[in-house]
Amino acid sequence: MLELKIFLNQSTKRNRKTPIYKQVYEAIRTAILDGQLKAGTKLPSTRFISKDLKISRNTVMNAFDQLIAEGYLITRSGSGTFVANQLPDDLLEARKFFHRAKSKSESLRITSKRSELVLQSPDAFGSDSVKARAFKTGFSAIDEFPLELWIRNFSKCMRKMPRVNLDYGNTKGYMPLRRAIAAYLGSLRGVRCAAEQVLIVSGSQQGMDLAMRILLDEGDEALIEDPGYLGARGAFLGTGINPVPIPIDSEGIDINEFDKRSKNARAVYVTPSHQFPTGVVMSLSRRLEILEWADRNSAWVIEDDYDSEFRYDGRPLAALQGLDNNNRVIYIGTFSKILFPSIRLGYLIVPQDLIEKFESALALTTAHSSQFEQIALAEFINQGHFSSHIRRMRGIYAKRQKCLIDAINTELNEFLEVKKDNAGMHIVAWLKKGWNDRKVAEFVLENGIYVAPISHYCISEKIRDSLLLGYTGISQTEIERNIVRLKTILQNYPENN
Amino acid sequence: MLELKIFLNQSTKRNRKTPIYKQVYEAIRTAILDGQLKAGTKLPSTRFISKDLKISRNTVMNAFDQLIAEGYLITRSGSGTFVANQLPDDLLEARKFFHRAKSKSESLRITSKRSELVLQSPDAFGSDSVKARAFKTGFSAIDEFPLELWIRNFSKCMRKMPRVNLDYGNTKGYMPLRRAIAAYLGSLRGVRCAAEQVLIVSGSQQGMDLAMRILLDEGDEALIEDPGYLGARGAFLGTGINPVPIPIDSEGIDINEFDKRSKNARAVYVTPSHQFPTGVVMSLSRRLEILEWADRNSAWVIEDDYDSEFRYDGRPLAALQGLDNNNRVIYIGTFSKILFPSIRLGYLIVPQDLIEKFESALALTTAHSSQFEQIALAEFINQGHFSSHIRRMRGIYAKRQKCLIDAINTELNEFLEVKKDNAGMHIVAWLKKGWNDRKVAEFVLENGIYVAPISHYCISEKIRDSLLLGYTGISQTEIERNIVRLKTILQNYPENN
Repeated sequence: MLELKIFLNQSTKRNRKTPIYKQVYEAIRTAILDGQLKAGTKLPSTRFISKDLKISRNTVMNAFDQLIAEGYLITRSGSGTFVANQLPDDLLEARKFFHRAKSKSESLRITSKRSELVLQSPDAFGSDSVKARAFKTGFSAIDEFPLELWIRNFSKCMRKMPRVNLDYGNTKGYMPLRRAIAAYLGSLRGVRCAAEQVLIVSGSQQGMDLAMRILLDEGDEALIEDPGYLGARGAFLGTGINPVPIPIDSEGIDINEFDKRSKNARAVYVTPSHQFPTGVVMSLSRRLEILEWADRNSAWVIEDDYDSEFRYDGRPLAALQGLDNNNRVIYIGTFSKILFPSIRLGYLIVPQDLIEKFESALALTTAHSSQFEQIALAEFINQGHFSSHIRRMRGIYAKRQKCLIDAINTELNEFLEVKKDNAGMHIVAWLKKGWNDRKVAEFVLENGIYVAPISHYCISEKIRDSLLLGYTGISQTEIERNIVRLKTILQNYPENN
Repeated sequence: MLELKIFLNQSTKRNRKTPIYKQVYEAIRTAILDGQLKAGTKLPSTRFISKDLKISRNTVMNAFDQLIAEGYLITRSGSGTFVANQLPDDLLEARKFFHRAKSKSESLRITSKRSELVLQSPDAFGSDSVKARAFKTGFSAIDEFPLELWIRNFSKCMRKMPRVNLDYGNTKGYMPLRRAIAAYLGSLRGVRCAAEQVLIVSGSQQGMDLAMRILLDEGDEALIEDPGYLGARGAFLGTGINPVPIPIDSEGIDINEFDKRSKNARAVYVTPSHQFPTGVVMSLSRRLEILEWADRNSAWVIEDDYDSEFRYDGRPLAALQGLDNNNRVIYIGTFSKILFPSIRLGYLIVPQDLIEKFESALALTTAHSSQFEQIALAEFINQGHFSSHIRRMRGIYAKRQKCLIDAINTELNEFLEVKKDNAGMHIVAWLKKGWNDRKVAEFVLENGIYVAPISHYCISEKIRDSLLLGYTGISQTEIERNIVRLKTILQNYPENN
């Protein structure tokens, strides 16, 4: 019992949150595995232990029960509790194992090659190193989200929801939500699809992951925009795909480079509505060329329409998907930007003949997204709240962009050159000649403001040094205040002489 | 204008839900792409079209705006709107494309080899073919879930939640939830982990998918239980892993077969608490042998503790993870069974040195699970509702199991032989000698009751013909009623003479 007491004290010190019965259990188990309590040894009565350790007898009995259930102890009716000796091999082995484990294990910790690729995939440039939201890209105006309305709608939906919605839902998503999305995309984005082709996923990232797994095998090549969205590159690397960078010209991804850079690319990833990060809108002729390329090469087009809701001037161009007569396009959209990121709902529009494969892949990964949130969102859209929210955010973001551009033109015109962008959540600001965007961004970051260097999104292209400034996540006051701060920072930049 | 009118009428017939402006837009676009409206052609005024088609002029203007934005039409100030001729190549190409697309596309629709594996992965045996819940396996008692309490708690959490929770959350999960899970698993399941090692996923299925991707490469071998859980086999197939079936003996997966069947397996998948579907509880010595095997072979152990909460007699054995001193175990749990399936929350406990890789892989797939649900669940656990719910369900399920066994013994003893199971959500009923479980199950299914043949879960093993009967998803009354129905069905089974 001495060891038991010592061990118990040690483990109590180690973790005060562990229940007492558990500590007793562990002390006895360790003593058995360590060989301090030999096979056949009779244990003191629970009454004795409880007095000795000043704990309740029930606690000791609980510990004994578990040790008996696990085969460490046995009871012989009328004579008490003993360390098991009916399973000597077990205990011998357990003991051997227990001692061996204490020595440094020599075995290797081999993980997959694909997991190394996952680690290599680039992160947002130093985004975690400052708390400030100015001028992070892709951040929604969570201060402007109609949270009260959302909560009321959510609670109402939960209360009137039939209990059967607690069961597994449709793997492809909640049908009323899929219908609402098909109608929305058809009328506002020129997407041509039946509700059946809409699959609900947890966001555009899962959409890309699924598409890559379904469409391409490890080692296959996919064309991506350079500079381009890091999440796409990451999704490709994480599924073993070889991303082949293609430069951007004034009409979008440069199709003349396709065959030069890859003889057998199986897919191309594009952001035609508003290229990330350059903001280029893909021309009609380029769209048609890409669809033709895909059909000619039996390849696929992944269209990521990540921020298409935020169009401030003119009507947005119809989606590539709507021009495609050969069912070559997988269209990806998300609610993260227009509603709020932590909702984790997005969607895929897939050709009819691929629905079953996508469904099977979903069933083997996440099954489906939260049913409650899908129900609440369907209602939010059907009640018209979604469209009015989009309209409202469009107005707010247009004002924030104008505010940012005015502030830059007033305060920073010796360092940055900007022009209006008709869409999106950030602007690209060309940097003073001779300045390196990465070095400037690092210096700015050290001083508490986030600006992303465009070169961070480049793979092999070298384009004009610029900074991305996100304007959607902060108020106009914050924008103005931080531009003034940025001015001081840039004035103190070592290369500013 | 004639074609426009005809086309408009056609498209109106095609889809009455398409907004009128959209129909006008599509009619004009098609006419241009088809060559019916030539480059440079002047269009009638919007006023004229609106009168001619009896639609509002605003509608026509909307259609024109979009066509102008997309480059199909151009306006010349003072002289009207024309089919664009500044981009003759575009239109030429578009037209070529448009016609070509109408002919049957000869290109191939090549998807990945891994997507074929996804399709091959076996589904639950005909589960969708009957609506009846009797006697489906793994179905929770959604009628007994405290939905009112859940909704109250959920609404309260949403209302008091700081707005910052609308932003992207921690990829690894909401910290208070991870802490609550670590505490729960530590005290009730013998899992030894820090909250940092807990990763929130959308369910055990995503846990397996991630683990396979991180730990193994395509073509690697993993040992699985035979018979075993279909979702695990599917997750392995879907990530390109070769599952190697290993038989089950009275102590669990038969470790003596490991080296005989695979020389270089990189992982083993086990359900030690309650083997699915046989119900075998893995012995202590087998647990230790498996841990030692993993360490000796630098391999990993995937421990799926899918229904560990449902233990009706005796204390559950501690998890394998808690015995492991070499950090070789990835422990997977889920809230689907104990709460409700559509919540889509589960967890992984991973060794310290793998946290970063799992986090990166999560970031590139689903990012994280719904933040609202994580917050609500953390509160539900911390308020003690979770433990009382477990206790309550344990009582209900124990009664349902007893009810099922009594009913079978009373009504079906000429066909089925059953015994009590101390855990789980279903029982295994041995079938009358000479009867084939799959044939019986198919016959029963045709008559509106679901019973799964155990052979459906077998890969290469042949074990005694039996049926799985789930009892958790239906009330005692339903159990009794359906056993009486089952008796009639089996009496009419053609081989019953």
